[in-house]
Amino acid sequence: MRYDFASDNTAGICPEALEALLAADRGCQASYGMDDWTAQASDAIRQAFACPQAEVFFVFNGTAANSLALASLCQSYHSVICHEQAHVETDECGGPEFFSNGTKLLLGRGANGKLDANEIDRLVARRSDIHYPKPKVVTLTQSTESGTVYTPAELREVCAHAKRLGLHTHMDGARFANALASLGCSPAELSWRAGIEVMSLGGTKQGMPVGEAIVFFEPTLAEDFAYRCKQAGQLASKMRYLSAPWVGMLQEGVWLRHAAHANAMATRLAEGLRQIPGIELLFPVEANAVFARIDGRVQERLKARGWVFYGFINESGARFVSSWATQPDDVDALLQALREAIIETMAAPSVR
Amino acid sequence: MRYDFASDNTAGICPEALEALLAADRGCQASYGMDDWTAQASDAIRQAFACPQAEVFFVFNGTAANSLALASLCQSYHSVICHEQAHVETDECGGPEFFSNGTKLLLGRGANGKLDANEIDRLVARRSDIHYPKPKVVTLTQSTESGTVYTPAELREVCAHAKRLGLHTHMDGARFANALASLGCSPAELSWRAGIEVMSLGGTKQGMPVGEAIVFFEPTLAEDFAYRCKQAGQLASKMRYLSAPWVGMLQEGVWLRHAAHANAMATRLAEGLRQIPGIELLFPVEANAVFARIDGRVQERLKARGWVFYGFINESGARFVSSWATQPDDVDALLQALREAIIETMAAPSVR
Amino acid sequence: MRYDFASDNTAGICPEALEALLAADRGCQASYGMDDWTAQASDAIRQAFACPQAEVFFVFNGTAANSLALASLCQSYHSVICHEQAHVETDECGGPEFFSNGTKLLLGRGANGKLDANEIDRLVARRSDIHYPKPKVVTLTQSTESGTVYTPAELREVCAHAKRLGLHTHMDGARFANALASLGCSPAELSWRAGIEVMSLGGTKQGMPVGEAIVFFEPTLAEDFAYRCKQAGQLASKMRYLSAPWVGMLQEGVWLRHAAHANAMATRLAEGLRQIPGIELLFPVEANAVFARIDGRVQERLKARGWVFYGFINESGARFVSSWATQPDDVDALLQALREAIIETMAAPSVR
Amino acid sequence: MRYDFASDNTAGICPEALEALLAADRGCQASYGMDDWTAQASDAIRQAFACPQAEVFFVFNGTAANSLALASLCQSYHSVICHEQAHVETDECGGPEFFSNGTKLLLGRGANGKLDANEIDRLVARRSDIHYPKPKVVTLTQSTESGTVYTPAELREVCAHAKRLGLHTHMDGARFANALASLGCSPAELSWRAGIEVMSLGGTKQGMPVGEAIVFFEPTLAEDFAYRCKQAGQLASKMRYLSAPWVGMLQEGVWLRHAAHANAMATRLAEGLRQIPGIELLFPVEANAVFARIDGRVQERLKARGWVFYGFINESGARFVSSWATQPDDVDALLQALREAIIETMAAPSVR
Repeated sequence: MRYDFASDNTAGICPEALEALLAADRGCQASYGMDDWTAQASDAIRQAFACPQAEVFFVFNGTAANSLALASLCQSYHSVICHEQAHVETDECGGPEFFSNGTKLLLGRGANGKLDANEIDRLVARRSDIHYPKPKVVTLTQSTESGTVYTPAELREVCAHAKRLGLHTHMDGARFANALASLGCSPAELSWRAGIEVMSLGGTKQGMPVGEAIVFFEPTLAEDFAYRCKQAGQLASKMRYLSAPWVGMLQEGVWLRHAAHANAMATRLAEGLRQIPGIELLFPVEANAVFARIDGRVQERLKARGWVFYGFINESGARFVSSWATQPDDVDALLQALREAIIETMAAPSVR
Repeated sequence: MRYDFASDNTAGICPEALEALLAADRGCQASYGMDDWTAQASDAIRQAFACPQAEVFFVFNGTAANSLALASLCQSYHSVICHEQAHVETDECGGPEFFSNGTKLLLGRGANGKLDANEIDRLVARRSDIHYPKPKVVTLTQSTESGTVYTPAELREVCAHAKRLGLHTHMDGARFANALASLGCSPAELSWRAGIEVMSLGGTKQGMPVGEAIVFFEPTLAEDFAYRCKQAGQLASKMRYLSAPWVGMLQEGVWLRHAAHANAMATRLAEGLRQIPGIELLFPVEANAVFARIDGRVQERLKARGWVFYGFINESGARFVSSWATQPDDVDALLQALREAIIETMAAPSVR
Repeated sequence: MRYDFASDNTAGICPEALEALLAADRGCQASYGMDDWTAQASDAIRQAFACPQAEVFFVFNGTAANSLALASLCQSYHSVICHEQAHVETDECGGPEFFSNGTKLLLGRGANGKLDANEIDRLVARRSDIHYPKPKVVTLTQSTESGTVYTPAELREVCAHAKRLGLHTHMDGARFANALASLGCSPAELSWRAGIEVMSLGGTKQGMPVGEAIVFFEPTLAEDFAYRCKQAGQLASKMRYLSAPWVGMLQEGVWLRHAAHANAMATRLAEGLRQIPGIELLFPVEANAVFARIDGRVQERLKARGWVFYGFINESGARFVSSWATQPDDVDALLQALREAIIETMAAPSVR
Repeated sequence: MRYDFASDNTAGICPEALEALLAADRGCQASYGMDDWTAQASDAIRQAFACPQAEVFFVFNGTAANSLALASLCQSYHSVICHEQAHVETDECGGPEFFSNGTKLLLGRGANGKLDANEIDRLVARRSDIHYPKPKVVTLTQSTESGTVYTPAELREVCAHAKRLGLHTHMDGARFANALASLGCSPAELSWRAGIEVMSLGGTKQGMPVGEAIVFFEPTLAEDFAYRCKQAGQLASKMRYLSAPWVGMLQEGVWLRHAAHANAMATRLAEGLRQIPGIELLFPVEANAVFARIDGRVQERLKARGWVFYGFINESGARFVSSWATQPDDVDALLQALREAIIETMAAPSVR
């Protein structure tokens, strides 16, 4: 079977997450998060972030994690500032607007998928009347939808702009581990120490079967948040199956090792692509995603051979995402297939 | 470790669900439900219900299944008729109201946890002006929150009343398998053939780690429902881990075998309780839950010995729920502990 | 034309409100509440309540006033405690649930339409788990839906219970002026000095064409409330037509004079009814509404003669509401018609 | 007092609307729209639009009219296509998102404030997966936020594109009368005959004190809409004061006469501006609004003299709106003041 480069959620469960899940599957456990595994997983996250006072919640998926976190930071008549390519804007089917009962997203620009800090000022200054929702939150994605990462300095700058304007700060960390592995920073350095108040911490894309965590570094912001999760259909009854995998992932740096591996596979792919004439990388490759400009006919041939990936932006953009499960051979086979597809395309009679 | 009678969601994953989950954990699979396992599970449900045109969706938990299904059947200014003890009213923290943006629940009465069909007429007739939400849906729980079951004839009666009044019909089937096993009916007979249009079909309480199904027997009611799930944070990216267990459960009647076992354990407990003087059963025991009147001091002693169960209605009510994992020895040990607790209580000096 | 006793909103505009409206209809005025009349009306309300720091907002109707005020005091996963006969529960078509995105109302009992303070404790104590919405607000109606009034002592008791339990307090004052006139208290004594934090202050039923005020005695609770009004379609562009009538009403005690008149008409009616054998008053008559038990056939005859009023509770209950516009002759004519209807009914051959 | 060119909602009540309001202020009338005036006004609208089957509702303001109408045409996981300068996007504080519980607005381009029909196709084609809200409605503003009008042919083209793609059509007609007067069309020609299904029909800006109408040309789309209005706080108790002014406005073409007058004042202003060197009109002047590029320092001097108008787009854009109440002298005085302000500015010593 071909490796599926469409996303890092096409891979299965990584061994350590599975082992913990199976370990948790013994006997009865109190439901709704009152079990031992959930307590242990929460502690592991607090420890990983060096933030003993953090409040931790486990929910089912990333749309819910982001939407619930944002909804807890604002009211329906407020607005949330994000990059114009942010997942909350482009791929959650209006989830943030739904959970918050109407909060608008304000779209900022910035190179390489990273929100320019000055955009926050611009979007806040643009309107100050009550006929337009009042900005209340800034949300960033780390690593970004373009496969790049915010450095600690960049994060601190964005958060400083937000703080100066009285805005809350949220991080969509669906691929936070990839950013950590890329930058070699500590989790604290890349989150609350840089000014982030609340984070959606990704589990699924790192190798878990289902589930993300929401971490409130500022515990007062978490008031009654358990009720919010319950009402919104995000409280698992057999919670141990969401939480135990975190225990497996966070011990002995497993999550970072997997993320580093995924990043290395992306780098390998990027390096291979750079060798191929006519292929252009669209963004710096800093995490586990590679965006490249590839002739549409070549893409078709690749897909015909069974390779799976998403188009991006326009017909010649293509996105390849690696994961804990990607093997060097997968990358090499993809590169080989690409080279062959290019040759075939060049040899093919031009369609008109 | 004591068996935990608090609920049927304290037990782990049943062997067949786990086996299927592990079988699904091989290689890459398309995400968001486009995988083979999800197709296979949907087919298995359609086949089990003898309803080839049914539309099937897999979501994370019961609150979401019920709330999304109900929201799809009405608007915010409508109302939903349910039994006053229904889970949607008593245990979902306003989930139905949240997902539907304000729909009110109208509470009907009925013996043994079963909605009296005449209550539907009463609640609809009570108001007909626009200052009160217009009834639009009837929802039933099968098996009920009191551990009883609606017979096919009772279901047909309720649905006939609903239909006559132009109301949609929904079944909360968190413990539908227990009702099937209890009555020996076919799934079709106990759902769409009796007049049910949409069902929340329970997985977790039957032995799965996470996930419920929503089944639209009337496929036109499912229009754009996939968008609704996505927006509401209920579309799993690694969907195979929600759907594969259904394949394991539905093959060769596994779900019914487990449900029958759970029911038998409840019956065994009920029979044991009947032998104990002073203990009174509060409802007929027709599925996998037993409600009994037990002196509060006796309950305290039971809990002190490590037995877990919920109080119910008032201080002398107690609920015991069995599952696929309950063993006869668990039941017998509980009964023995109860007898001892009673004797100790009688021997204890009276307080004040 | 018969006077219409169906409600105090069937009457027209009282002279002082109309005069102010016409006075405001000169030349241009800044829109959206930035006009002089709105400033003046806000000041008049602050002065009437002896609460200089109060924040005042003008909205279109009572459902909006109540729903917006309650939504500002809680989140969707909270609940609001009210009397089981409260307007927010019985006559706003789920408005509070809609504006708050799902907040549940918890219904308390109490004689004569007044919430028993102990019911607050009962409803809060009933549940303390996250599977049920957490109580956050108590709302009272003054004068009540039964035509009675809370004394200052009763108000203080209810608010003390609420405060002890950490709940916010709101008053639905659609007929607040009637309560003031009835008790002879100051507005402050009957609101914030008794512990009320936010009030919906009725205008329409007192004689205005359209509009109610929301008064935050605790100004920090009003943060960003103007945005909430705007988003919810409750910001009038030509605000002066909502605010100017308040200026007319609040000068020289006009609102109290009208309310006292309406109350006197209800008392006149009640006294007349007491003289008629077989008629029973259902509640003490303390404001501008009279509830009486009148034989259903008699009610039919009254209606056939053109008298308009609402049935209440059951077929023999009838509600008559007076207003600033009710004349003694209207009351006397109604009483005369009632006496005639009774005689006719007694003379009529028994049906069947 | 200076005439206020900030908007057409700064003017008062036009004589005919006021006369009808006062005529309606006699005696009692049934509340909540069951009165004679509301029936008469509804009929007058049906007649004006030559659409006997139309369903008509009266609500308080334009945000509510637009938001309720749009919410009735889609679900939270759908999206609404509008021009990027549409009022629903720029000036309703997220009202459409709130009333629909999260529906996203998709922004299309188009010259002179008019949505290019091809933008509908582009926005629909852009995404077809469930991770992005599904387009369901197109909404147009007539006359537009730029003071231009859609011709019948343009309207038909937009509606044809919408229909081909299965989208509903809504018109924000806050200034519909101005478009009618400008084009000399019949109301039917400019609405349902062109393909519009639902319209928000403006009253306030035409000279009424408060209130807009929602007109469903396709009556099946209005099912249970009265409940929606009630729940959302948009059902007036003394409805006659919202509806009677429509009777006054629609008789003998009053609304068109006023609109034509307002348009003529805008034209007079535009012609005057064209005579002034250095002033540039930003859009064709086709209704009652004029947008001009005027040096920022000149604008400041105008404002210092007491003239009121809004900036637009950037510091040199200015918007002037005329109404039924604008007098030729107001326009001429504004022009004179502008000329003087320009001369003063030229004479002033350059800053720095």
